[in-house]
Amino acid sequence: MPIVQVELLEGRTLEQKRLLVEKVTQAIVDSIGAPAENITIIIRDMSKENFSKSGKLACDK
Amino acid sequence: MPIVQVELLEGRTLEQKRLLVEKVTQAIVDSIGAPAENITIIIRDMSKENFSKSGKLACDK
Amino acid sequence: MPIVQVELLEGRTLEQKRLLVEKVTQAIVDSIGAPAENITIIIRDMSKENFSKSGKLACDK
Amino acid sequence: MPIVQVELLEGRTLEQKRLLVEKVTQAIVDSIGAPAENITIIIRDMSKENFSKSGKLACDK
Amino acid sequence: MPIVQVELLEGRTLEQKRLLVEKVTQAIVDSIGAPAENITIIIRDMSKENFSKSGKLACDK
Amino acid sequence: MPIVQVELLEGRTLEQKRLLVEKVTQAIVDSIGAPAENITIIIRDMSKENFSKSGKLACDK
Repeated sequence: MPIVQVELLEGRTLEQKRLLVEKVTQAIVDSIGAPAENITIIIRDMSKENFSKSGKLACDK
Repeated sequence: MPIVQVELLEGRTLEQKRLLVEKVTQAIVDSIGAPAENITIIIRDMSKENFSKSGKLACDK
Repeated sequence: MPIVQVELLEGRTLEQKRLLVEKVTQAIVDSIGAPAENITIIIRDMSKENFSKSGKLACDK
Repeated sequence: MPIVQVELLEGRTLEQKRLLVEKVTQAIVDSIGAPAENITIIIRDMSKENFSKSGKLACDK
Repeated sequence: MPIVQVELLEGRTLEQKRLLVEKVTQAIVDSIGAPAENITIIIRDMSKENFSKSGKLACDK
Repeated sequence: MPIVQVELLEGRTLEQKRLLVEKVTQAIVDSIGAPAENITIIIRDMSKENFSKSGKLACDK
């Protein structure tokens, strides 16, 4: 029953997300043996004004 | 102080969300006895390209 | 595919959690029409030193 | 390695978010001594139809 | 800057978690081209009384 | 109604957490003008085998 939440900076293409969920699901199958049909992934797109590292927004770098 | 986060596939109407928060709040009051005014709910809408089951995006099913 | 995350102050009994997931699942079925088998709930227990309101830890109130 | 997720009702300006990440980062540096460059903050904007207190959506208050 | 949160039912070994973070990180590098050093993963272990599908706790199945 | 979730590597003292919630709450008051009594903070302690950067668990560094 693994549940995965992935925060990404916005701008990923549909094809990149398609690949991401396919490969991350496979990575979990291969590492812990959970069946693929039990693996749920939620992607959340962050705008650059909603992400900060070292106290600075990504849009200000 | 229960805090509830609910991820839904996008497309729910305002009326459905209104019902959802009313009924989920009541469900928590009834099951654990927390007072309604302490119960916070956050809803997050997921687009179909941001949700995956079995390694496949919802928009590809 | 609703996914629900619930943070509770620690100390709930197994019976309370059993009731909570039953009733919250039903509340979502009744409000948005999602089938029960698609509804996932994660409960997370918070200790009183890990929850704050108004800048004060719950263990200090 | 602190990771901070902040849910805000929508409508904050860029300048408010800029201040928020600067000040929250500094607050964590000052309280637990983590270096600023290890502190990540994710902001998520909630619409008023996606937030509920006491079983009522913020847009209905 | 991808940030990944993974909820797993408790009982995974350290070796399984080691493999999981290695493989999930690589899956994200391969799918969206983010550099490995920017990828953060948080694992959270759920006890069987804290996870529900279809309104039933995992410990009751 | 800001809701803040903070993931920390385990090992922080109660006094550090007390300071953290006081200072982070104040930082949000000062930056966006939310009243302190509306600010909720959840802290989650991560063990070193549950946190990864660059594909390596914190316990392996």
